[in-house]
Order: sequence, then C-alpha cells, then structure tokens
Amino acid sequence: MARSGTRIQAVMAEIRSRIVSRTCLPGTRLPSVRAQARAMQVSVSTVVEAYERLAAENIITSRPGSGFYVAGPVAPLALTQLGPRLDREVDPLWVSRQSLEIEAAVLKPGCGWLPADWLYEAGVRRALRTLARADTPELTEYATPLGHPELRRLLSRRLHGIGVDARPDQIMLAESGTHAIDLICRFLLSPGDKVLVDDPCYFNFHALLKAHRVQVVGVPYTPHGPDVSCFEAALREHSPRLYITNSGIHNPTGASLSPVTAHRLLKLADTSNLVIVEDDIFADFETSAAPRLAAFDGLERVIHIGSFSKTISASLRCGYIATRGDWIESLADLKIATTFGGGRLASEALLIALTDSGYRKHLEALRLRLASQMQRTIVRLESLDIRPWLVPQAGMFLWCRLPPGSDAADIARACLTDGVILAPGNAFSQSPDAGEFMRFNVAQSADERIFEVLGRALEGR
Amino acid sequence: MARSGTRIQAVMAEIRSRIVSRTCLPGTRLPSVRAQARAMQVSVSTVVEAYERLAAENIITSRPGSGFYVAGPVAPLALTQLGPRLDREVDPLWVSRQSLEIEAAVLKPGCGWLPADWLYEAGVRRALRTLARADTPELTEYATPLGHPELRRLLSRRLHGIGVDARPDQIMLAESGTHAIDLICRFLLSPGDKVLVDDPCYFNFHALLKAHRVQVVGVPYTPHGPDVSCFEAALREHSPRLYITNSGIHNPTGASLSPVTAHRLLKLADTSNLVIVEDDIFADFETSAAPRLAAFDGLERVIHIGSFSKTISASLRCGYIATRGDWIESLADLKIATTFGGGRLASEALLIALTDSGYRKHLEALRLRLASQMQRTIVRLESLDIRPWLVPQAGMFLWCRLPPGSDAADIARACLTDGVILAPGNAFSQSPDAGEFMRFNVAQSADERIFEVLGRALEGR
Repeated sequence: MARSGTRIQAVMAEIRSRIVSRTCLPGTRLPSVRAQARAMQVSVSTVVEAYERLAAENIITSRPGSGFYVAGPVAPLALTQLGPRLDREVDPLWVSRQSLEIEAAVLKPGCGWLPADWLYEAGVRRALRTLARADTPELTEYATPLGHPELRRLLSRRLHGIGVDARPDQIMLAESGTHAIDLICRFLLSPGDKVLVDDPCYFNFHALLKAHRVQVVGVPYTPHGPDVSCFEAALREHSPRLYITNSGIHNPTGASLSPVTAHRLLKLADTSNLVIVEDDIFADFETSAAPRLAAFDGLERVIHIGSFSKTISASLRCGYIATRGDWIESLADLKIATTFGGGRLASEALLIALTDSGYRKHLEALRLRLASQMQRTIVRLESLDIRPWLVPQAGMFLWCRLPPGSDAADIARACLTDGVILAPGNAFSQSPDAGEFMRFNVAQSADERIFEVLGRALEGR
Repeated sequence: MARSGTRIQAVMAEIRSRIVSRTCLPGTRLPSVRAQARAMQVSVSTVVEAYERLAAENIITSRPGSGFYVAGPVAPLALTQLGPRLDREVDPLWVSRQSLEIEAAVLKPGCGWLPADWLYEAGVRRALRTLARADTPELTEYATPLGHPELRRLLSRRLHGIGVDARPDQIMLAESGTHAIDLICRFLLSPGDKVLVDDPCYFNFHALLKAHRVQVVGVPYTPHGPDVSCFEAALREHSPRLYITNSGIHNPTGASLSPVTAHRLLKLADTSNLVIVEDDIFADFETSAAPRLAAFDGLERVIHIGSFSKTISASLRCGYIATRGDWIESLADLKIATTFGGGRLASEALLIALTDSGYRKHLEALRLRLASQMQRTIVRLESLDIRPWLVPQAGMFLWCRLPPGSDAADIARACLTDGVILAPGNAFSQSPDAGEFMRFNVAQSADERIFEVLGRALEGR
C-alpha cells in the first residue's frame, strides 16, 4: 500500500477531478468522512486530512455541524474561454472584443461600424448645445416607461415610410439595438428553446443567444434572403420559437431580401408558432428600400427593431422596438425590472439630431462615400485574389471568399499581431466552410497597410 | 350520448384547458386525430371538426403533412398581470410604473428619486457644454468593453475612500445600477436558484429576480442590518447562490448596517458558497459612512455596485460594478453580447460632473435640505398617526407603520385616484404584515395636499 502522504494526495486528486468535471457541483455536500473512507478504501484519518487540505485551498468549505461542501467560485455563465488578448480563440465575441479594445493606431477593417469622423458629429454637437439649455426634467429625470413620446412619434412616421405601420404606443425605446433584441429574447425564450438565424449572420446574435442558453439553428442565406426550402425544413424539424434576421442590408453578406422570399417566409411562418425579429439597424444606408417583413406582416408575428448607432453616433445609445400592442406593456415591465428607466438625454439628443435638416445631407454624403469606398476596396481585395460573394447595393460590408486553401481564423490571428483587426467567417457561422470567408468593412479599409499585412498573411498560409 | 355539436364542444374545451394549464405547451404537436378520438372516446370526424375550429380560432395551427400544433402567442415572460392603470394590482412593479408614467401635476411621495430640481442640473448643463466641444471619438464612438478608463480610475479612488479596494481594471461600467445587478444575476444565476433579499427590500429586486426565474427568500431586516440568526438559518436551509442588499442607507427602511452585523454576515458566508451583491446607490447621501461589506471582504465574495442617478441625474444613465479580477472579463463579454458597447457620452458627462468642484457643494446643500425635509415629514405623518419604524441618519426614505387596521395597498389605490402616488409595504415585502407599512420619500413630500389626501384615505379605511 502507498505511503500515507501519497494516499492523501490521491484522495485530494480524485475530489478535485470530480469538481472539475462537475460531478460534484459547487454548493453540494461531500460524502461524510466515514462514507468517503469506505468508498475510497482508505482510512478515516486520510480523508480528514485530505478534506482539511482542500478546505485550506478554498476548494471545499467546512460548515460546522454540517460537513464539507464544494466551494465557489460558483459556476458562472462564461460565454467564451478567455485567454490573453492575442491568443483568444475566434468565437462570436472575438471581433467585438478586439474592435472595442483598440487603440487609435490599430487598423480595423473587421469592425462593424464607421470611422468616428464619418458619423454625424456636427449634429451631435448641435444637439448637446441645445440640450445644455433644456428644461430641468430633460436633464435630471428618468424617461417614461416606453421612452420619449416625441421620438416615438417620429419613429412611427419613419417606419410608415418603409411600409411598417406602428402607432407610437406600439414603440418602446431601449438602450441600444442589441438591448432591444435582448429584451425580446427575455420575453419570448426559455432555456433550451430553438432559434433560427441566418448562416452566416451578425456574430453577436450567436453571443446573445448563448447568453439565453437556447439552441441555435442556422438557415443558409442566399443573395435574396434565407433559403426558403431550408427554412421550411428547419421549421418542421425544430419548431423554433424565434427567427432573428437583418432586414434592409444583411450583415455580413450585404444581400437584401427579395419580395418573393419575404412573402414565402411569412407564409411558412403562418403554419407555425414562430416569432420573427427583424433588425433594421442599417436602414439609413439604403439607396432604395428593400422589403421589410414587418411591412408584409403588419407586426403580427414580426417584431421590428433598430437604432441609429451606425449613422448618427454609437456614443449616444438609443434603440427601439416596434411590436404588437399587447406585448409592449410586458416588454416595458421587463425593461424597468432589468435596467429601470431609460435616460432622457440620449433620446432627446437623438431626436434633435434626427430632425435636424443636416441629417439628410449627412446621409446623402455618407452613401456616396460608402459607394466609392466599396468600389475601391473590391479592386484592392481582388488584387489579393479575395472575391466578393456579391456586390451589395449599399452599406459598408463586403462578404468575401478568401483564396483557396486559406483559413480565415489563422489569417485573422496573424494580422492581429501586425495591428490589423479582421472579421473571420468563423465568427459569423458554425458551418464547416465558414473559414473560407471574411467580412470587410469598406469604410475602415482605406489604409494601404491593411492590404500589405493581409497579403503577407495570405502568402504565409 | 350527447349530440355531435356538444361532443365537438367538449373536445374543444378539453384541449383548451390543457393549453391553459400548460399540459400542452405552445409549439407542441397534438395527438393525431385517430389517437385523440380513441383517447376521448369520440368519432374521428368529431376530433377533425374540433381541431379545425380550434385552428380557425388560432388556438392551434395546422402544418400540412405534419399535424396540428399548439399555437401562439408563445407563452411570454409576463412579470405582472396587467390591467388598466388605476386598477393594476400592487406588485413589485406597481410603484415604478406609476411613478415613471406620471404627469407633472401628480404628487409622488412614493417614488424613489428626488424632485427634478434637487439634482445636479447645473453640473449636467456644464458637462453638456463641455462635451459639445469634445474630440470626435467622444461624440460618435462606442466605449471600450469595461468603459471610460478615466471614470473607472475616479471610481477606484472614490471606493478607496469608503475602504473598498478595487483597481480600475476591476471596475466595469453598466447602463445603470439596475443593469449592473442584472448582469451579475445573468452571470451567476440559473433558473430555480435561490436568492436572499432583505425583508423589506427595494421592490425592483423582486421584479428583477422574477425575470431571472429564481426563488426569492426574505431575511428580516433589523435597524442594524439583516437578522443574523435568520440569515444563518436561510443559508443552511436554502444554500442560496446570491444575497442582494443595499449598503450605506437601506431602501426602504433607511437603516444602516452595523460593523458587528457586517462581520457576522461575512463569517457566515465564509462557510457557504454565497455571493453578495452590495448596491451602494445612496452612498453620496451619507453624512458619515456606514461599513461596506465589500470593504470587510476585499471583493472576494462581495460585488459592489452603484450609480449616480440619485444625486447627479437619472437622465444620464451610468452604473458600475466592482468585482474580482477573474470575473470582470466574463461580465464584459456578457455586457457586449446583450447590450453591445456602452455609450461614451453618458460616462464622459458623468466624469465631468463628478470632478466639477460644484458637486461637493451640491451634496452638502442636498444633505441639509433632506435632513430638514425629513424632520418636517415626520411631524406631518405623526399628526396622522403614521409612525417611522426608525429615524434614518440620512437619505430620502422614511419607512412608516400605518395606524392600526390600515391596509397599505388599499390606501395607495385610493390615493392614486386623487393624484397621489404612494409606495405601499406590499411592494417591498411578501410578509403578511407588509400591508401595515408604507415608504415615504421626504423630498417628494413637501406638498400639503399629500397629507390631506392621505388623511381622507385613512379615515375611509
């Protein structure tokens, strides 16, 4: 038989491994010293000593009169396996975290927003000057549960312009577009539910849905919207509760929904229990309006959300939800319970900026600038044998196929060490071929160094 | 045997009742027509007709080739039973919803914040003027994942002042104090977990925890903090994952934790797996600092949160979390997944207001004004035989016992019809005697009409 010290170590190792494998969960009671001794065929004093040493390491805790318990930290909801910044695995949060962390010197063709000086800075400055003279309640009070009434009236009129009929009392403001989707998920989903997303889709949908502990089912996205027959099969096979998609300009592909696809999707949804969330965040980039599911459906099963982070300012947070009248009050309760009232300042500043006559001119200039940068980026990428999957009508994204044999995640990690943040296909899709794709933000791709670094990484593949 | 029409009705009634009782969940397939006919001992054609009629009512839906399914609306997470505004039941969201909805003419001694012109309006105006001249990224870009570095450095120094040692990289900004607690709950809790709260406690803790589908266990609150022996019994009996409490000035009682209670609580927690959230939202009202659990514990198991909605502005949303270094990155992932980046503007404005030399003077004047209004309100309430449970050292809340035989919820509903929003004890506690208590906000109790309306309601009891 092994020496006593070795036996103690063996008992400690066994208990540690049960905790790591979660056979013993945090907070559960360990077997009594006697029972453990019998089970492990060692002496009681060996177990006593092993328990005491594990307690000294804070792996288990002793409760006098009650026994030993598996200690914390309690198992928290980790969305990712964290590592040092550069080594972190490419997961749905990879691009967001890298892009948000960056210092100004880093180039970020992978990020999902415009350069700071492409946004509506002049409008925001004017709004702040106006607000500095606003009435006291604007500056110091909570917003009403649904949020700024005048902004909701404006949103109602804007939505009418793309065929979506939502009364102001069917609209609720949220902290951001992501927050709007999160509230809807909290309202409609339970852990284990199934949710459809486009494949590929905006990577943060994957991260968000992971936080809701639901199962994600991808439906292949075509240049005209989701593949209708795959959508039908997914409905039949999975009975999903929700489908989350982008309307207007799709992220990451830049594609737009065709009217016939929109109609077929909604007909299929009618035979099911599905609710659809349509994220219209890129609405103001469009040069001609694509069909909106919410317009065809009349907000029966489609919930329409949006924000102005992409065209006015990401520093001024404000999103919105347009939905059925009978759901809006429950969503307001949920918002108050989880973030309390919204602020008035952000919504007031947004209203001022949106109704400023300069905003329309800002958008016109923005669209021209994006179109020209789109052409330029296509040419530069093609010189590296990187080909657009389609040429979008508008917007900032180009979804591209890398040269044969390339691995997007490897290239993204290599470029990050050279100060270039890319958006590899793996962040947008769980499909096996996702690593052949990469999303480029044309507005963030003006710097020639991006293509030099990328070219070197492709050669080293 | 009953007539065919009656049999169809009976089958429909049975299926409806299974759906209402959630024996049949939305999205699940109903038994085939044949199987249902056998089970209910009716003919196949009776079931076919019953299914068709239920489908016409949209209670079930038919999927060709697949059968009939229980239709939507999918069962959403309703935190409350909604009714018209005045009739709504008193639940944890009652006071928030009523107070946030109000028009200026309504009096609101029940609400949880100061009148608009008691807040730091001058500081907010100065901050907005300064921001109108800020650099472009401040106005248009997302914040970094943890939020404004300089504001986090300031918070670190402020926390040091009350004995809480948190490095800036142990602090993350959130949209609000409530949002901070919500993120922690998402990080640590799973549905069905048990959570301790004070009895009574801030009503929104009940609403928030309901949204997390956890079980709430109340621990009686004494003038020195939670009852330690009840706390110990609750730990033993329920193995809770979390305890959420207010430090500094307790809401609704106005009590403060004593050092000996703080020490005993933490000693008890050491024998368990408990994490403690300490909501320090009223910190700046204090005239002398009460002990903080986070200071005693060194942020091992205590998470410290706060915001400045109560002393600077509720229109400028920004909260914070101070916690262990190994938890902060996962909390940042969760924040990005569910609300994306925070805005820079709110945190920048807050930093300017906090570091403005006027803020200290604002607080001094505020504390004097609150103390004087506290005295005045006590006198007015005592004339109606409404007695404070204790006289708080500072803050805006008075937790009062109503005259014998009064029901706080009835009185609150009666006063609401007269334009006075009160905060009945039932919103803060699930205890049987909660209806004998009411919380008064002394800063919102200056208007004599409040006591007239209250007096009439008490007489009518």
